[in-house]
Amino acid sequence: MTETKPRPAAAPSERALVSFVSVENMMRLVNGIGVEAAITGIAAEIEADFARWEEFDKIPRVASHAPVGVIELMPVSDGRRYAFKYVNGHPKNLREGLQTVVAFGLLADMATGYPLLLTEMTILTALRTAATSALAASRLARPDSRVMALIGNGAQAEFQALAFRTLCGIDTVRLYDIDPEATAKVMRNLAGSGLKLIPCADVAEAVAGADIITTCTADKRNATVLSDNHVGAGVHINAVGGDCPGKTELARDILTRASIFVEFAPQTRIEGEIQQLPADHPVTEFWQVLSGKAPGRRRRDEITLFDSVGFAVEDFAALNWAWREVQASGLAQPLDLLADPDEPRDLYGMLMRAAAT
Amino acid sequence: MTETKPRPAAAPSERALVSFVSVENMMRLVNGIGVEAAITGIAAEIEADFARWEEFDKIPRVASHAPVGVIELMPVSDGRRYAFKYVNGHPKNLREGLQTVVAFGLLADMATGYPLLLTEMTILTALRTAATSALAASRLARPDSRVMALIGNGAQAEFQALAFRTLCGIDTVRLYDIDPEATAKVMRNLAGSGLKLIPCADVAEAVAGADIITTCTADKRNATVLSDNHVGAGVHINAVGGDCPGKTELARDILTRASIFVEFAPQTRIEGEIQQLPADHPVTEFWQVLSGKAPGRRRRDEITLFDSVGFAVEDFAALNWAWREVQASGLAQPLDLLADPDEPRDLYGMLMRAAAT
Repeated sequence: MTETKPRPAAAPSERALVSFVSVENMMRLVNGIGVEAAITGIAAEIEADFARWEEFDKIPRVASHAPVGVIELMPVSDGRRYAFKYVNGHPKNLREGLQTVVAFGLLADMATGYPLLLTEMTILTALRTAATSALAASRLARPDSRVMALIGNGAQAEFQALAFRTLCGIDTVRLYDIDPEATAKVMRNLAGSGLKLIPCADVAEAVAGADIITTCTADKRNATVLSDNHVGAGVHINAVGGDCPGKTELARDILTRASIFVEFAPQTRIEGEIQQLPADHPVTEFWQVLSGKAPGRRRRDEITLFDSVGFAVEDFAALNWAWREVQASGLAQPLDLLADPDEPRDLYGMLMRAAAT
Repeated sequence: MTETKPRPAAAPSERALVSFVSVENMMRLVNGIGVEAAITGIAAEIEADFARWEEFDKIPRVASHAPVGVIELMPVSDGRRYAFKYVNGHPKNLREGLQTVVAFGLLADMATGYPLLLTEMTILTALRTAATSALAASRLARPDSRVMALIGNGAQAEFQALAFRTLCGIDTVRLYDIDPEATAKVMRNLAGSGLKLIPCADVAEAVAGADIITTCTADKRNATVLSDNHVGAGVHINAVGGDCPGKTELARDILTRASIFVEFAPQTRIEGEIQQLPADHPVTEFWQVLSGKAPGRRRRDEITLFDSVGFAVEDFAALNWAWREVQASGLAQPLDLLADPDEPRDLYGMLMRAAAT
């Protein structure tokens, strides 16, 4: 190369090692901290990042489609740190004994371009989704909310229940799933949690007396999990399961009665419940509530809706939380991912010297 | 979730393990195969993929810019396999003893969305860049070419020299770099290669009698590494170092005399030598030559130019080559990257059970 700079000192070889957090170590980390404390920590990080929303370089997900599914990259940067998540969506995987969604993520330093952290993100995404839901409800639900209906009792259900107890003071969860085995699973898993758990026979029973209604089903179509007559005055709806084109959970009439809050409007218009509405239907981006630019709930009898699809800034926040916690816990393993010759121009010499050893 | 499918059998847990190739193991793999055999193998893979160019879902690089550098994701898919490369560009890193460019990549199965291979890609990128250059020259240079001028003797230089010997029959390399230490490094590293190596005092001396001129300098500006009077009739120019906006190596007059071949025109118009030309200047995408849709060299006295910036399909080919070779060599390590509960809906239960062990 035509660089005329003095030859640099040997590069610090530890810079070539990226911290890796395996699934096993992520479970150790979260269990060591406690699920609710982890959700609280991630929610604080998300709140801080949403409050400085405009500092982020936000781009849409980058998707590659196959007939049977999609693989997406979700990058975002605040100019200092860079994060991306790899996530797939293959509904037919369940029939083959595979996960429909797997995810991993990376955090990097924008000043050098060097990766800092590579980590599993299936568990981390479950935590950040629950943290985001409960953070939104803490500003949008009635402050005296105690009862939540939880419609859809799959992989996200327990995380939602614990997040709402910790961040919103929920003490009772009314459970419903079209598969009673899923409800039984949540009852078992949360038996020792102190939450009052009420299995319900249908949606109408589950929403009776609920202050908050959370929908997190996996139906891959325009379903009506929640009908208009299920939703009374003053309720907060946390709609988590509608998250791609053609996949919604709420009757359209609910949307026109509700004050609608979203993460990043350009993405939610495509993927969220509001894909059922005209493109100019008014919505509020939740970061505006956190930064004082827009009101949250205005009246006790207002119906508020958080139409959540998941956004890259939440993953950025979760990755920064994980990076801080793994440094403190020693649960990261060094991964030899980056070639780092002592003399940057002598990549071939590094290869030759490796052959000689 | 509201899935009504029968509960699947326990997922095969090995599907949750991603094959990882460290820098150390990539060096073992390449040294075991031999650098020239590796380049030949990768070139064959690139040739096969370029010949079916239209099957690929091609999108531009996804870049995040900071004042000091850039981080890019380069995804591509053929509908069966999916690949992406993470690569940064931070010119000021060299002064801090860090690489200006580090890279890693991932190969995944589009049928399941599951990653197959995670690997270092700094070494792999050097191999695929040299393979691409020599593959292009094998169709564009005069068949009796024996002498190559190599302007810029940095990290890419040895790989280029060996690729052109193996794929094009080059036996003599005339070396020049503005830093004589860089040339001395190449002379040392290739001393036992059998190539005739001739260090030169300037560009004019280096290009004297050369059939092929390769430029791979790192100047981050619109430089004129090669002037019009350096380029005689019948020469093939392999321009590797111009690869981002504002970074070029060739005098504009050379471009107007040459038949220009590129990888992916929309990207090269922005990043390559042809950023100096009007947007409608005729160029040929090299895949068209490989698939018989366009001629390569037409006359002995024609000046041909391969204006190379690097494209995602080359990384896709290199990753597929690496995936095949590491499976044969046993040099991959299993990485516990993907959460894989026995019951896909019971992520929380998996976490609880881990706490109990």
